[in-house]
Amino acid sequence: MALIVQKYGGTSVGNPDRIRNVARRVTKSREAGDQVVVVVSAMSGVTDNLIRMAKEIATLPSEREMDMLLATGEQQTIALTAIALHASSVPAVSLTGAQAGIVTDGVHTKAKIQNISPNEVHRLLDEGNVVIVAGFQGQTADGEITTLGRGGSDLTAIALAAALKADLCQIYTDVDGIFTADPRIVPRAKKLPEIAYDELLELAGAGAKVMQLRSVEFAKKFNVIFEVRSSLNDNPGTIVKEETSSMEDVVVRGVSLDRNQAKVTLFGVPDQPGRAARIFRALADAAINVDMIVQNASHDGGMRVTDLSFTVDKPDLLKASHVIHELRGELGFKEAVANENIGKLSVVGVGMRSHSGVAAKMFDVLAHEGVNIDMISTSEIKVSVVIDLAKGEEALRALHRAFLE
Amino acid sequence: MALIVQKYGGTSVGNPDRIRNVARRVTKSREAGDQVVVVVSAMSGVTDNLIRMAKEIATLPSEREMDMLLATGEQQTIALTAIALHASSVPAVSLTGAQAGIVTDGVHTKAKIQNISPNEVHRLLDEGNVVIVAGFQGQTADGEITTLGRGGSDLTAIALAAALKADLCQIYTDVDGIFTADPRIVPRAKKLPEIAYDELLELAGAGAKVMQLRSVEFAKKFNVIFEVRSSLNDNPGTIVKEETSSMEDVVVRGVSLDRNQAKVTLFGVPDQPGRAARIFRALADAAINVDMIVQNASHDGGMRVTDLSFTVDKPDLLKASHVIHELRGELGFKEAVANENIGKLSVVGVGMRSHSGVAAKMFDVLAHEGVNIDMISTSEIKVSVVIDLAKGEEALRALHRAFLE
Repeated sequence: MALIVQKYGGTSVGNPDRIRNVARRVTKSREAGDQVVVVVSAMSGVTDNLIRMAKEIATLPSEREMDMLLATGEQQTIALTAIALHASSVPAVSLTGAQAGIVTDGVHTKAKIQNISPNEVHRLLDEGNVVIVAGFQGQTADGEITTLGRGGSDLTAIALAAALKADLCQIYTDVDGIFTADPRIVPRAKKLPEIAYDELLELAGAGAKVMQLRSVEFAKKFNVIFEVRSSLNDNPGTIVKEETSSMEDVVVRGVSLDRNQAKVTLFGVPDQPGRAARIFRALADAAINVDMIVQNASHDGGMRVTDLSFTVDKPDLLKASHVIHELRGELGFKEAVANENIGKLSVVGVGMRSHSGVAAKMFDVLAHEGVNIDMISTSEIKVSVVIDLAKGEEALRALHRAFLE
Repeated sequence: MALIVQKYGGTSVGNPDRIRNVARRVTKSREAGDQVVVVVSAMSGVTDNLIRMAKEIATLPSEREMDMLLATGEQQTIALTAIALHASSVPAVSLTGAQAGIVTDGVHTKAKIQNISPNEVHRLLDEGNVVIVAGFQGQTADGEITTLGRGGSDLTAIALAAALKADLCQIYTDVDGIFTADPRIVPRAKKLPEIAYDELLELAGAGAKVMQLRSVEFAKKFNVIFEVRSSLNDNPGTIVKEETSSMEDVVVRGVSLDRNQAKVTLFGVPDQPGRAARIFRALADAAINVDMIVQNASHDGGMRVTDLSFTVDKPDLLKASHVIHELRGELGFKEAVANENIGKLSVVGVGMRSHSGVAAKMFDVLAHEGVNIDMISTSEIKVSVVIDLAKGEEALRALHRAFLE
């Protein structure tokens, strides 16, 4: 008898019909003799509707009250899921995050799980119940309701799997698993049977929207093996786990295109110690996440100046421009130019550690396609370049052909 | 500085605009220097929508899970109300029933309040906050979420007012207070400045839908004085309290017409000890609430038989007919006849205790109007009669004219 944690996202529980479908899946797992813990998100649309009402009342609603408000979404789904299981004669009990023993810190809207007391869940499982836990939420030691922020339900599932020492954690979603590239752009993209935590982290960081970084980081830290699979069919999904030696045989696991970045270039920055530090400290203080940074060699004969480029998330561009212009007098750069029409292409694989020439091959492929490279950044298992957004999709398909077909 | 508990029902918080309106009222009370505890219901429509989804999934959803589901409605309103108060710069904290210390028994969907620990509410009030408590819900000593059933938010407000030793409890609704009769039927009905608990209990029992019986009973038991008033204007409402000697000067406080009753008559019941007990035990076992019972004198020369009539709530009529027909063989009555076209007229007032002749005057008025009386039942402070439903409204207006204009 195995213990399985299954997580179903908002579209998988989007209406009463879909909730009945989830109940059928859970029933099947249980009939196979397994103990099942189900983690569910709010029904799709519910959270957005609650946020809309709150914003109608106040432009900046209190974070504590947003947690009080949004936690109701998952609470509704757990009750409806339990009702659906009862209708199939499966004993089931729903638990809020607090009732499931999920204790967090007090940072409302993005709380961190501090500790999970799995006694109540174990007790209910041992009585023969399916236990349905509200994702995305917890409770402080003082009894305050908290939420875990974006991707919080995945985190609940993975953290519960760790605390319960589950045999398997399944993340059900509306895609079949993790692909070598986004199939909407690359029709020949293939589903991966497995992927290493680090590869998924690099792909997620590179804009592949399968899972939030922190859920994967948490799984890696506690070595929780999980499977990403579809709630709409019975196809096996993608297993995410610590890398194995055989994984290194594959040089490139996947390629991605991130369209959500914007580039800022500062021309003519006087090349003196501390200038770069000053800029990126100011951006960090404004809570702006900087991804790639490139500084060109100094030039301009007499007084040495340099050009500095960096990328930020598009929604942060306005704030970043503001920060930069505030610093202009102090830094003395000539000009700042922003560009939203960029795409970041990434090639990811743990095999790169033992195989050289991936970057060279990537640049070759792009040159062949007539794509100009604007910025380059590399990690041990990833090469990323910034290019003109208009050429992004074609370039992604070319990279997929070269590395993965 | 007074401590006021204010309760706002579902229509008073039915959308973000109305919630802002509630915040304005609360702010005004607070600016007058009072401490305010606000009890809110779910936004109108929310609870019905949740019930609809549950019934779409299962015809008979588990009561524990219905509580888990429905408790979210009030939790949403408390958060939105706190957000609205913050937008007016009023410090406010929302609390679920559990967080507010409302402990109930474990009878899901109709739990009874066992005890309220008001420490947290007092602490937050003393810090200068408006405290917003979710109505209709509580928690068992084991941490199970429960709801209090119909009219539960009124009960929350009155029980909190008792536990907090509040100076005033205001029940805000969409009418101006309690009237001498339903103004939709009797245009000349007048708002009552005050009414005794017992009078309100008799009127509510007689179909006036101002408040649920058990909230009034609770208020009477703990001597909580409360005011029923409108959330849409500033008119003073109706004060509900223990009767005073001056109240007896008014013979009739109000009249009402209950259209929600149906009558069952059993003809030719053998007049033997235990027959009536057998019938009403069977109805009670089927959870059917019987209101009026009338048994005529025995007749039919040789074998003594009698006719027995009783009234039940219309929705229970089918169930009651079923119970009666199951008993037919055992009881040996000749015929059972049901009639849904009846109305129950009631005349209520504590002054009746010291004034005789109310029943006689009532029968006179009805005779004058050509209304035939079908059944009669009296209590110390009420006279009720069953009549033909078609004559109900006209008869109610006649009684109002005779006793109250």
